[in-house]
Amino acid sequence: MTARVVIVGGGFGGLYAARRLAGGPVQVTLVDRQNYHLFQPLLYQVATAGLSPGDIATPIRSLVSKQSNIEVRMAQVTGIELSSKRVLLTDGALEYDHLVLATGVSHAYFGHDEWERFAPGLKTLDDALEMRRRVLTAFEEAENENDEQRRETFLTFVVVGAGPTGVELAGAIAELSRFTVARDYRRFDPKKSRVILVEAGPRVLSAFDEKLSGKALASLQKLGVDVRLNTRVIGIDAQGVTLEKERISAATVLWGAGVQASPLSKSLGVELDRSGRVKVKSDLSIPGHPSAYVVGDLACFTQADGTTVPGLAPAAIQQGEHAADNILAACAGNATEPFEYLDKGIMATVGRASGIAQSGALRLSGFLGWCAWLFIHILYLIGFRNRLLVMIQWGWAWFTFGRSARLITGTSGASKDRVVPEVVEAVRR
Amino acid sequence: MTARVVIVGGGFGGLYAARRLAGGPVQVTLVDRQNYHLFQPLLYQVATAGLSPGDIATPIRSLVSKQSNIEVRMAQVTGIELSSKRVLLTDGALEYDHLVLATGVSHAYFGHDEWERFAPGLKTLDDALEMRRRVLTAFEEAENENDEQRRETFLTFVVVGAGPTGVELAGAIAELSRFTVARDYRRFDPKKSRVILVEAGPRVLSAFDEKLSGKALASLQKLGVDVRLNTRVIGIDAQGVTLEKERISAATVLWGAGVQASPLSKSLGVELDRSGRVKVKSDLSIPGHPSAYVVGDLACFTQADGTTVPGLAPAAIQQGEHAADNILAACAGNATEPFEYLDKGIMATVGRASGIAQSGALRLSGFLGWCAWLFIHILYLIGFRNRLLVMIQWGWAWFTFGRSARLITGTSGASKDRVVPEVVEAVRR
Repeated sequence: MTARVVIVGGGFGGLYAARRLAGGPVQVTLVDRQNYHLFQPLLYQVATAGLSPGDIATPIRSLVSKQSNIEVRMAQVTGIELSSKRVLLTDGALEYDHLVLATGVSHAYFGHDEWERFAPGLKTLDDALEMRRRVLTAFEEAENENDEQRRETFLTFVVVGAGPTGVELAGAIAELSRFTVARDYRRFDPKKSRVILVEAGPRVLSAFDEKLSGKALASLQKLGVDVRLNTRVIGIDAQGVTLEKERISAATVLWGAGVQASPLSKSLGVELDRSGRVKVKSDLSIPGHPSAYVVGDLACFTQADGTTVPGLAPAAIQQGEHAADNILAACAGNATEPFEYLDKGIMATVGRASGIAQSGALRLSGFLGWCAWLFIHILYLIGFRNRLLVMIQWGWAWFTFGRSARLITGTSGASKDRVVPEVVEAVRR
Repeated sequence: MTARVVIVGGGFGGLYAARRLAGGPVQVTLVDRQNYHLFQPLLYQVATAGLSPGDIATPIRSLVSKQSNIEVRMAQVTGIELSSKRVLLTDGALEYDHLVLATGVSHAYFGHDEWERFAPGLKTLDDALEMRRRVLTAFEEAENENDEQRRETFLTFVVVGAGPTGVELAGAIAELSRFTVARDYRRFDPKKSRVILVEAGPRVLSAFDEKLSGKALASLQKLGVDVRLNTRVIGIDAQGVTLEKERISAATVLWGAGVQASPLSKSLGVELDRSGRVKVKSDLSIPGHPSAYVVGDLACFTQADGTTVPGLAPAAIQQGEHAADNILAACAGNATEPFEYLDKGIMATVGRASGIAQSGALRLSGFLGWCAWLFIHILYLIGFRNRLLVMIQWGWAWFTFGRSARLITGTSGASKDRVVPEVVEAVRR
């Protein structure tokens, strides 16, 4: 009988595992609660109105429609029974011979879940649209406001956490206010908006070399971002952010700080690390369950030098493909192989034409760093159509300073069902 | 003192009125509850996943950012006080010397408002995203379903009303199922989906010549649409549609039938027609209120031959510009001019490469009709960037039969908060 493989999660890890199994002697079911694969590295562009959701998301079905041994199920997975080899769904269950778990991580609030309403994180397309709504609505409310102090509150944007997501968000909002919407309002100058990036650690983008990290800081400051290092957030509410030594009134607070493993990992009953990731064996399988693999951000994989593989798209892709290879090996009666992470480097962008990249001994910053970033990201955008459209859109936006997707959707606009009624009312009080 | 003009509504009528007043001796405030201008003739493309919201919507601010005498306010208008010349907002009010009302129409359910939940209409971007969610989710549920009869219910799409919106929706869904997603599902053949178009009158697109209307019917049938003419809908619920002589089980019902004037017209205390539109004088002003104009779909304008001007984008544009001219004339102490509608013709499209167009003595159908439709619609798409992108997108979709925007957003996907939980549960029962 053909072996049944169930893959949970259609992100980089799950999708590349499925593609590697295409045409193999297995029947694959890829389960995701969304119908699309998301190019997460560009999600901040949707949140800041640079790209539309359709530019960075592709229906999973269309990505595997030609692979007849892969079927896609849009469903919510509620748990995994490793002992009976079953994936539990809201309605029913799927039995498997081999399992690939790739459900990734979501944002974490370090024990302050009550902050989430006031400071949304960025993991899904709906998260990005919520951020876009809040940022654009803040400008609209500022235009409607007569009180100068309240207007300043609407024009203050606080981003928490200076990892890649936080830095990219802060840079993009600074640009949005200083260039894109600079001429759009009559009753205030958008250039006077404040963008404050708060980071508990001593530098931005701490995964990079200290020198590159310093260059990124300089780029942010040049864009007008107020970067507060060594600064801890101790409270977030509808009216702003409380730091250790200061209170900032702000209508818009965005969260780019912590992540935690998808809650599914807890249902496994196996050893997890501090952030809930599954500690996997060298072949990516779960200890004691040789036919269940965990890949991508959900996996805690310790390398020979004692460090863990970082939660990056290239790592998820490599692990997804490796798990698929091990499944094929097992089907053929061969032994599984240990995974080795090939570190191709890391990169981040800061605004319009500045970025940093490091790979092996190579260090790029400024315009060159940005070009490298652009090249790699467009190259990896899945699906040719998106790649072409995103390039045209960026080219156009770059020359005109325009942002194409400045739409406030998902509400009845300025109707009674306001986007962030609580925040707006709190500021008005 | 510079005269103050308030324009309510940023659709075709309001936007073209504002643009005509650019640089004039007036201070213009354009109020809309959304932050974008919508190219409504292409809205059905968003509802059927052919285009993304950003392709047919542009921020109103960016369309008038260079016109320094125009300010844009995103706000909800709650009423108009014609006597005191005030526009009432949720927070505060705007005083005017001249008013242009252009709030358009929304869908009407002929006294059956309870049908709206089960059969959403298509007027706003959020309406279109809701339709897209329902259509795409129906296919996903069909793939998850094991019972053959329930699966058929998920794969039955009923469109009510065979005006342009209904015909375009039915044609696009038929195409979606027969070409675009034809290879995407493993457990059923999307080509077997049923698309049923129900129309109470004796023919489709009744605004056109009988011969053209017959050609459109033939095109629809060729696409596989089951057209039911002279058929009245007497009930719509979570499980389907009740016709006079038949019951159709369907998970997805879309409403393309009636329209009614925006509720604002009732607050005016002036004479309205049956569908709530304001009966205007020959210069487009409200009888008894010479400085208050109504344009576009909200206006009921009777022509010399006794017919009323149709609710089309070109009519709204002409009226918006005419009202603006009359305001400028009044400011200069001149008399206002009567409006005359220049009928440039009407057109509609049926699926991938077929359309009908009539203008004066000219009659086009089939591929030529579609070319005319395409040319005019792309020409009028506001903003060069959109025009270029939409062309590329369509070109790509046309050659590949792909639909780029097949994303189910605005929910947590297949989580507990289902898109249309009631409908899905009802079908499952």
